[in-house]
This record gives sequence, structure tokens and C-alpha cells, in this order.
Amino acid sequence: MHAFDEAIALQPLGEGRYEGRSHPAWANMVGPYGGITAATLLNAALSDPRRLGEPLALTVNYAGPVADGSFTIEATPARTNRSSQHWMLVQRQGDAVCTTATAVFALRRDTWSAPEIQMPPVPAAHTLAQSNRNARVKWIVNYDVRFVTGPWPDLHNPVDEPDSCSAHWMRDHPERPLDATSLAALCDLFYARLMRRRPKLVPFGTVSMNCYFHADAAEMAKVGTQHVLGTAQGQRYVGGFFDHVAQVWAPSGELLASTQQVVYFKE
Amino acid sequence: MHAFDEAIALQPLGEGRYEGRSHPAWANMVGPYGGITAATLLNAALSDPRRLGEPLALTVNYAGPVADGSFTIEATPARTNRSSQHWMLVQRQGDAVCTTATAVFALRRDTWSAPEIQMPPVPAAHTLAQSNRNARVKWIVNYDVRFVTGPWPDLHNPVDEPDSCSAHWMRDHPERPLDATSLAALCDLFYARLMRRRPKLVPFGTVSMNCYFHADAAEMAKVGTQHVLGTAQGQRYVGGFFDHVAQVWAPSGELLASTQQVVYFKE
Repeated sequence: MHAFDEAIALQPLGEGRYEGRSHPAWANMVGPYGGITAATLLNAALSDPRRLGEPLALTVNYAGPVADGSFTIEATPARTNRSSQHWMLVQRQGDAVCTTATAVFALRRDTWSAPEIQMPPVPAAHTLAQSNRNARVKWIVNYDVRFVTGPWPDLHNPVDEPDSCSAHWMRDHPERPLDATSLAALCDLFYARLMRRRPKLVPFGTVSMNCYFHADAAEMAKVGTQHVLGTAQGQRYVGGFFDHVAQVWAPSGELLASTQQVVYFKE
Repeated sequence: MHAFDEAIALQPLGEGRYEGRSHPAWANMVGPYGGITAATLLNAALSDPRRLGEPLALTVNYAGPVADGSFTIEATPARTNRSSQHWMLVQRQGDAVCTTATAVFALRRDTWSAPEIQMPPVPAAHTLAQSNRNARVKWIVNYDVRFVTGPWPDLHNPVDEPDSCSAHWMRDHPERPLDATSLAALCDLFYARLMRRRPKLVPFGTVSMNCYFHADAAEMAKVGTQHVLGTAQGQRYVGGFFDHVAQVWAPSGELLASTQQVVYFKE
């Protein structure tokens, strides 16, 4: 079983209630990688027999740390319409809420369609070196990341960049065909934009992440195990918080997901 | 009392429970303007004596229509930390959930700060004409909108634009000093990007809106009753949905809020 699937696996405890367990391969500085938590919450709604349609929108609020060990997820379909369904999700350890989330599922229809923003021209993933996986966080070994621009800064020779833009190819390691859960996790695979503007190691962490899924299951299946391109830019840094907007692109140029997050940092 | 304050007013029913009522001046095609619903849900958490800090992030999921009449809001502080608080909000009419939301509040601290994306150079609001307020929706009279680029398309002479970018000055009408609730409502004041790319009147509606607040109360007070600038662009249109990213700028150039939404449309 793939470490990703092990990490997001849930045991049903009753209707809309699940138990999961932190996975050592996904450990971050404190608690698990935020992307795996997002994927696990999404998986609770995806696994539910009441679920209608495919993921369209997901907001994950990182309310408090997830300690090593087991957790529960409560997944409530707040409203089911003919072609959409709204979920509320809460992850708890004991009585403490670790994470809250909302997810919208929808049945897509064949309509007028068009791209608008465009994937930047970049060299193919196989022409680029895999970035260093001897990072200070364990979970990074679960990804194959190849930076086009904007790699993690050299903290021994720090340079304040005028902007925080970056582009990188990324996929699960070992390879795993793309699906909505892995795409949700990839949406969090953008290091803190603050580190480009001011490369100094301070405590930081995602407060809230938002993902819009444009790709349906068929489009994700077409991507399969290929790398997808992540592009991101910070918007404003003030009062101990900053936000970024980011995109995840199929190698053929379709926008698979758009994602935003607001991040806490300590001066 | 200002129509905005009338519309977001809530009667406490008990701890974390409020009653509100749809306001005729804010009527949209179906139900109220989504921005006033966002502001009303935010107001429930803001009004709560347990509330800590100022709005940082807000996600509003439009699960079903709000009928004319009264509604209840349940506001639950899911987790309170030293300097942040996570809320879950549900708006109901009878047993039916109309809207779900999550809100993050935070105590901001004085830290390193920097802008990144820049407000585009635009003519001042007073040099531009107020856009037509004889729209087919009632709520638009509550706003003074002045388009710089990308006004509502002429449906008699429709032109498919190559991109959906627009910029407009906006403020409450009559004037009302900016605060977090009115900023939340302004975050929804971007008409469907689809109407620029394909100017044809079809049913559409916001499914989910996300707002990140960069401005604190002091920065909003500095804006006061001046116009703020809204800029927006759609990202991809597919399967009956599209998303846009947008920004709300102070006239002095600070990014007050960044916002995104995913919108349903019918072919």
C-alpha cells in the first residue's frame, strides 16, 4: 500500500464518523504535513456512502496541532441538492478540534468551456534535477519536486527576492496516479512565500487553505503519474500573516486546481 | 440606520444562536445578494461575546437559496488559541441549511511587513462616472460602482472578450465607513467573469467564496468612506463552473483583502 493511501486511510465508526491515525512518514515540524490533513478530511467525505458528485471546493482551517496518534473525523452533509452537496468536516483528538473544513461536491455537466490564465512556458520535468530531499521535515520524501524557478532559499547566503514567484514540477514519490485526494495534498506543496522575500527561518504555518478543483476524475486519470506544475505568488505580508495564490497545472497545460492560503509567521 | 446595518442585524436567541431577516433592499434574482449573506454570517461571530481578535479568513458556501423572511445562524467557536479563533457558522431556514461558513479571527502583531502584488494605476474614483444602477437586481442600488475597465457587457452588442479582467471603484451607497462586514460584502461585488468571456445571460451563482483580510480595523478606518478598488480575473471555465481571483485595494494602494470564488453556470 502506498504511504499516501496509508496516511489518508479511515476506519468508519458509524454514519459520518471516522477514525484515522497520524503516519510517521508524513511528519512535519509540528504534527503532520498540512496537505495530508487536507487529503484525509476530503477522504472522509469521499468515502461516505451519502456522497454525491466529485470535489469542487475545499477549505481547510488548521485550528490547532495534530499530535501523533489517532484522531476522529466527523463528516456532515449539511445540504444535498440535485447536483451539488455541501459538507462540514471536523477533525478532533479527544475533545479538542484540530481542523475544520468545508467541502463542496458537484456533478459536472458538459458546458461551454475555456481556459483563461495560462501555464507559463517551462522546461519538461525530466530535464530538471530533483530537489534535495534531505530536508528538515520528514514528509518531503513522499514527493518528487523539481524546481523551475524559486527553489528553497540558501539560508547560508540569504537573498531577499523582490517577488515570491516560483514554479516547480511535483508528483508523489513513489509514483501514484493523481486523484482528488492527492491533488488536495499537492495544493499545500508550496513553501512559505515569506522565505523568498525574507529568507530567515522563523516559525510559520498555514492557517487556512482553499482549493478549487477544475479537473474531474477523467482529467486527473489522464495526468496519471506524470508531474504536475505548481506556480505560486504571495500577495501581502502584514501583521504576522501573509497569503498566496497558486495554481496546479497538468503537463498538457490545463489548470487542474487553483488554491490559496493564508499563513501565520512569527517576526 | 444604514440599510447595510439593517440587513446584517441579528437578534441573539441564546449562546451562539442568532435570528436575522432578509432585507428587501438587498434582494438578488433569487434570495439576497451573496455579499450581504457573507457579511451577516461574519457578523454573527463578530457579535459573539466569546469572539477573540479580528477577521483573518472567511469561507462562505452558498448551499441553497435563502427565502424571503427570517433565518437563524448558529455560530460555534470550534477552537480558541492564544491569538487565533476558528468559527463554524450555519445559516438555516427551518431545518434546511442555506449557507455554511468558516471564519478565522486573529490578533495581529507588529511584524516585518511588505506588499507584493501592486494595485494597477487607475484614474481616481471621482473622475469616473457612476455605473448604471437601473439593474435587474435590487441590491445594486446599495453600491456606488465606477468601472475603470471591464463594465457589465452590452447584451445587445455582445463581444466575447479574450480575458475577463476588470477594475472598478466601489463603496457603499449611501456612504458608510469601511469595516470587516462591509469589506466581506464588497468581496462579492464582482459580476460573473463568464459574462465578459461569453456575454449571454444564463443562470449563474456563487457556490463558494473565500476572503482573506489583510487590513485591521485601524487600516479600514483610514479608508473610511472612500471608494476601494476591486480587480478580478477568471481562471478556468469548465463543467458548469468557473473560478476567479480578486483583490480589494485601498485608494492609497494597500491590499485590504484578497478573495476568490467558484461560480456555477448553466450552459
